[in-house]
Amino acid sequence: MTEPNSADVLARLHFVLVRTSHPGNIGAAARAIRTMGMRGLSLVAPQAYPHPEAHALAAGADDVLDAAAVHADLPSAIANCRLVLGATARRRGVLLDELSPREAAQRVLASLSAGHEVALLFGNERSGLDNDEIKLCHAAIAIPSDPTYSSLNLAQAVQVVAYELRLAWLQGGLPVPAAHADPPASSADLEGYFEHLARTLDEIEFHKGRSPRTIMQRLRRFFLRAQPDARELRILHGILADTQRMARLARGVTPDGRSATDEKD
Amino acid sequence: MTEPNSADVLARLHFVLVRTSHPGNIGAAARAIRTMGMRGLSLVAPQAYPHPEAHALAAGADDVLDAAAVHADLPSAIANCRLVLGATARRRGVLLDELSPREAAQRVLASLSAGHEVALLFGNERSGLDNDEIKLCHAAIAIPSDPTYSSLNLAQAVQVVAYELRLAWLQGGLPVPAAHADPPASSADLEGYFEHLARTLDEIEFHKGRSPRTIMQRLRRFFLRAQPDARELRILHGILADTQRMARLARGVTPDGRSATDEKD
Repeated sequence: MTEPNSADVLARLHFVLVRTSHPGNIGAAARAIRTMGMRGLSLVAPQAYPHPEAHALAAGADDVLDAAAVHADLPSAIANCRLVLGATARRRGVLLDELSPREAAQRVLASLSAGHEVALLFGNERSGLDNDEIKLCHAAIAIPSDPTYSSLNLAQAVQVVAYELRLAWLQGGLPVPAAHADPPASSADLEGYFEHLARTLDEIEFHKGRSPRTIMQRLRRFFLRAQPDARELRILHGILADTQRMARLARGVTPDGRSATDEKD
Repeated sequence: MTEPNSADVLARLHFVLVRTSHPGNIGAAARAIRTMGMRGLSLVAPQAYPHPEAHALAAGADDVLDAAAVHADLPSAIANCRLVLGATARRRGVLLDELSPREAAQRVLASLSAGHEVALLFGNERSGLDNDEIKLCHAAIAIPSDPTYSSLNLAQAVQVVAYELRLAWLQGGLPVPAAHADPPASSADLEGYFEHLARTLDEIEFHKGRSPRTIMQRLRRFFLRAQPDARELRILHGILADTQRMARLARGVTPDGRSATDEKD
């Protein structure tokens, strides 16, 4: 990619391979990324890495491999990212919005152009991304494959997504400016909000026999789609804090933990 | 590909791998073709085939491998074809027109729809298609790769071309699916939510000297941007209702308005 400052923009893009089983696939993915003019590779808990087979299949894209960051868990790999998309061949029901690779490329470039860090997640070869990993995504990337045989090889899925990113980049007609000016909150900050929300729902006895998991999945999907910025997240936290204060008062306990009858005025 | 007669149309499309060195690449190419809903594979003078590694990397796409035609030379493999396109990463000077994979997909589908047999040629891993092979092509397919590192793996080049063919096929009139499947709530429903939210914020004493108007503006902007659907809005209303219930209990009033001391159990 030869445009001015392309290195700056693309340095914010991270292909994140999660729990990869075969080191050869890591090398082949590095090669796929490099052929499309990108370099950012992160590995989360790879089963065998470093490994000579990774370098054998990188076929000259060793610079990408050598610079790859290795993380013990996914949240630490994407903590600074403001857009997280997960590749999945399967429909996951209500969990996440689905983007085609082409739609995803537009969204990624818009986010990169706004100065944000972006992560693209690719799961384990056999099992894909698990539900806890999918939950961290703002949306899914669904490669339109034959429903009767949808098993893309890991590096081939990376290739298709990287190819669409390169096309979108080269077409240059730079994507629509973001509709929302302030940067969205980071993945770690959003997870902090979800924890606060889950605690608060328990305290106001919200679930009443309904599945807390289903409700939280729907709420996660909603807030991930909305991409709140830092100030919005502060307001949302503030509402939860006052809600908790009321719930504690309702239970006859003052905010500092003493019984309300001690000092209720 | 589920359209009527798709099998008939696509049976006229042949991915032709020419002088392939590594049988694993033949298997990986079969898998790539199969994931995109196609099946036609021809092999010209493969260096090692049949071979167990081809089947290992086909990963379940054995039907494609088993049906592959093996030819001693390229002219006999493409004798019946009325459109022949050759994949090449390199510019071949004036020899041939170059099509992008997307342009090639359009041209291929037009030819298939007209009832013609079509061949897509992919050369040897190291040397690509030689000049005699290129001469048999109507045009070249050039995958837009990084000029400093343009070495796509054979199966990955097949994957990109097959992916564009599948997209072109599926677009055959089909609308692009919306990013979010459920329709967003109506404006009136959203306004109902904002009223409920404003009332609740008063009841939990959220504002504490801050401007209610500014806060509500920010919250409106956030929820309008997020475009909740009807089900999400019901959950959000439910959270507010339980929050109000807690606030009333905290004020010593039961939800139906009587003093809590009358009947708190």
